[in-house]
Amino acid sequence: MAEAIKVTIWNEFRHEQSNEQVRSIYPDGIHRAIGEGLEGTFSVKYAVLDSHEHGLTEDVLNDTDVLIWWGHMAHGDVQDYIVDRVHDRVMKGMGLIVLHSAHFSKIFKKLMGTSCDLKWREAREKERIWVVNPGHPIVEGIGEYIELPEEEMYGEHFDIPQPDELVMVSWFEGGEVFRSGCCYTRGAGKVFYFRPGHETHPTYYNPDIRKVIANGIRWAAPVARSYPRYGHAVPSLEPIKDKG
Amino acid sequence: MAEAIKVTIWNEFRHEQSNEQVRSIYPDGIHRAIGEGLEGTFSVKYAVLDSHEHGLTEDVLNDTDVLIWWGHMAHGDVQDYIVDRVHDRVMKGMGLIVLHSAHFSKIFKKLMGTSCDLKWREAREKERIWVVNPGHPIVEGIGEYIELPEEEMYGEHFDIPQPDELVMVSWFEGGEVFRSGCCYTRGAGKVFYFRPGHETHPTYYNPDIRKVIANGIRWAAPVARSYPRYGHAVPSLEPIKDKG
Amino acid sequence: MAEAIKVTIWNEFRHEQSNEQVRSIYPDGIHRAIGEGLEGTFSVKYAVLDSHEHGLTEDVLNDTDVLIWWGHMAHGDVQDYIVDRVHDRVMKGMGLIVLHSAHFSKIFKKLMGTSCDLKWREAREKERIWVVNPGHPIVEGIGEYIELPEEEMYGEHFDIPQPDELVMVSWFEGGEVFRSGCCYTRGAGKVFYFRPGHETHPTYYNPDIRKVIANGIRWAAPVARSYPRYGHAVPSLEPIKDKG
Amino acid sequence: MAEAIKVTIWNEFRHEQSNEQVRSIYPDGIHRAIGEGLEGTFSVKYAVLDSHEHGLTEDVLNDTDVLIWWGHMAHGDVQDYIVDRVHDRVMKGMGLIVLHSAHFSKIFKKLMGTSCDLKWREAREKERIWVVNPGHPIVEGIGEYIELPEEEMYGEHFDIPQPDELVMVSWFEGGEVFRSGCCYTRGAGKVFYFRPGHETHPTYYNPDIRKVIANGIRWAAPVARSYPRYGHAVPSLEPIKDKG
Repeated sequence: MAEAIKVTIWNEFRHEQSNEQVRSIYPDGIHRAIGEGLEGTFSVKYAVLDSHEHGLTEDVLNDTDVLIWWGHMAHGDVQDYIVDRVHDRVMKGMGLIVLHSAHFSKIFKKLMGTSCDLKWREAREKERIWVVNPGHPIVEGIGEYIELPEEEMYGEHFDIPQPDELVMVSWFEGGEVFRSGCCYTRGAGKVFYFRPGHETHPTYYNPDIRKVIANGIRWAAPVARSYPRYGHAVPSLEPIKDKG
Repeated sequence: MAEAIKVTIWNEFRHEQSNEQVRSIYPDGIHRAIGEGLEGTFSVKYAVLDSHEHGLTEDVLNDTDVLIWWGHMAHGDVQDYIVDRVHDRVMKGMGLIVLHSAHFSKIFKKLMGTSCDLKWREAREKERIWVVNPGHPIVEGIGEYIELPEEEMYGEHFDIPQPDELVMVSWFEGGEVFRSGCCYTRGAGKVFYFRPGHETHPTYYNPDIRKVIANGIRWAAPVARSYPRYGHAVPSLEPIKDKG
Repeated sequence: MAEAIKVTIWNEFRHEQSNEQVRSIYPDGIHRAIGEGLEGTFSVKYAVLDSHEHGLTEDVLNDTDVLIWWGHMAHGDVQDYIVDRVHDRVMKGMGLIVLHSAHFSKIFKKLMGTSCDLKWREAREKERIWVVNPGHPIVEGIGEYIELPEEEMYGEHFDIPQPDELVMVSWFEGGEVFRSGCCYTRGAGKVFYFRPGHETHPTYYNPDIRKVIANGIRWAAPVARSYPRYGHAVPSLEPIKDKG
Repeated sequence: MAEAIKVTIWNEFRHEQSNEQVRSIYPDGIHRAIGEGLEGTFSVKYAVLDSHEHGLTEDVLNDTDVLIWWGHMAHGDVQDYIVDRVHDRVMKGMGLIVLHSAHFSKIFKKLMGTSCDLKWREAREKERIWVVNPGHPIVEGIGEYIELPEEEMYGEHFDIPQPDELVMVSWFEGGEVFRSGCCYTRGAGKVFYFRPGHETHPTYYNPDIRKVIANGIRWAAPVARSYPRYGHAVPSLEPIKDKG
């Protein structure tokens, strides 16, 4: 059943083409590295910013159970009508996994309603991601923490709504903490923000990071259920007394 | 101290001018009826849609601790740059109280990130608003429930994020329930959605409804605190080992 | 995979033996009626109050993924050491589904930390259970609401901690509302409180009620993960500066 | 108004009498050091373990708005009927502030329903307590973080229910993180857990720590409101159709 989950991995895919260091780590793009950890388990498609409609046509989105989003330098190039289309799909149940610098993507800001701002520092520092919700399905198979030898730092205050479920909190060598694994329900859709994955570090090859993303897909997959009816509700379900 | 809280009551103020029935209930506008319950306790200002910048200039907003919002038929006439200005103030700590049909206002939808859709019916039916969080300051002085003899019905599903604190749930004569008192923190600001107040019913003269709004103002008032610093965080607080 | 979930259904099983009306509805006991809806899908065992150790030996609990609990008139007869044993299993990941009058069971009160008190009335009144969280897996396959023609009323205030996820809210004919589907994480375990099921009504034969219970089992099943280590944490993960 | 809040500070008061190092830091007891920061602002009383009824008679508790609790080595010496008495007062609205090692107190465990276990290490390490909820009244007047040069470490997983509001998260020099400022509503009462304050460090003289405790008192103070009625709810508020 889980095997049937249809995943689309969206990547901005610009750093990999303009920056030698990033290309050396992710020669086929971050999306392909993420997908490598998921193919075989899920049905995986890819979409990138510079495709027609950013690869997110109506057909693609209607055939997507869970969308993964990585973006960084070109959030502003994502067209608003595509953002609205993705948003509408989340309201109707599509899962969304937002990775790292996509905290500043249009779709995440639209879903959160806050600035989504934070502190950051590129200093190749150690990150230790602690599990604070040990029974959550997103950390199935994960130990007490995930240690990444080098990552970009993200620090509090992270301007997000309090997560419906806070699953992971990061410790950084340079002295900060960060809410790194954050679960939300929005409309009929589920949204998982997962912090790690700066383009200059090989984070998406880490087996634990891949496991969390796979768990996140299962957690965020839509529930089989009719979309609620909204609007004018007549007649009433119960008789209403005539007030004269 | 609480007496110094500066409240601005914003009203669309169109129904009262175009509809005889509404004018007969709220001859000076819904905003004035709400304000009548607050003057003497708070410092109260008024703003309406058809004023310059909808009455929400930078000066007015910078001098507002808590903004109350009532709108219904003309959400689309509120200019986006004013919505962004209000949103920015909420991020920085201004409280916002969203009343009744303002569930569909641009500012509420922007803050929630969801469709904010619901069911509705105008049938002059009884509403009983139950307190489900008895220790919350917003229900100070309120009994087990508030009964309104006639109101518009709003029914679930109400497409909002799960409230950070759910304080009241409505029972409707016609068979529906509704999450009627919903508290959120967004950025450094607090947002309180309060359901009652259809323009054809004299709800804002009800002493309990007025008490809840007054309590909401105290709860939503800003905390004296510097706004967090965001962005590039160098140097680090702790030494970072050179990884070579 | 889901098929492998091991469910133990615990029932007080006293009403059915002492009360003719209850026996006529549930001749083999409430536990068997609940189990009838689950056998074939899950691996189902049964346990009742008047068995040795209430049927909840170490062996039985260690072989249980999700425990379902129905009790009403004899909460006080459940021995404290068995309650502690169940509690310990929940901390370590076992799911627990608490039905109807088990709101006053020792195990639920111990897990919630509150009085778990509420209002009640036996008047054969209509209950309509509204879904307020349409994307939650517990309401998979359920429509906008479940209607029960006759049930005991439970009314607010229900003295529970605010649910981590509120999934359903009941409307009652007599004028009350109730938070009827409440999800909690406690320790590594998940707890689902589901309101319906008074012993004098055939509620556990209702297909939607059975579907919610089955969904609840899947939601509450343990995650495969080592139990966290607690206690003295030496040596440290990072060097600590000598403060002299 | 806030000035009228009646605070009782409860301290185990054993370390200070048996341990020279602790006595040198807190010669009059931890309770007096905490109270020193509160007197003048609140009405402050003191109670200690070795008094009659641990100093928590019915009269004392009925005259207490907010109870502060510090305990460590003698949790087991607190009598269960006193714990039940405190618990009952919290259900009815009394605030409770639980400090540091009182995470393992009987009253906190009873209110949380979980093991309240954690990791710990005494290594005189640096703690930096980050604010993650900048609009919360408990951090009024506090900067981005509070830095304590030397403290005992507490690390995740901290086995508590997910806080209703998570306000602060600690970074520790030795590599751990901890949810340090946790707000709960239980019954009509509010509970604030605040991590710092090991007996061998002068933490309760720190002006920011004192400010947080004072803010916590204001936040946890009871709301003026009748206690909900529970139990048999007849007659019904609305007519119930005769089902024959």
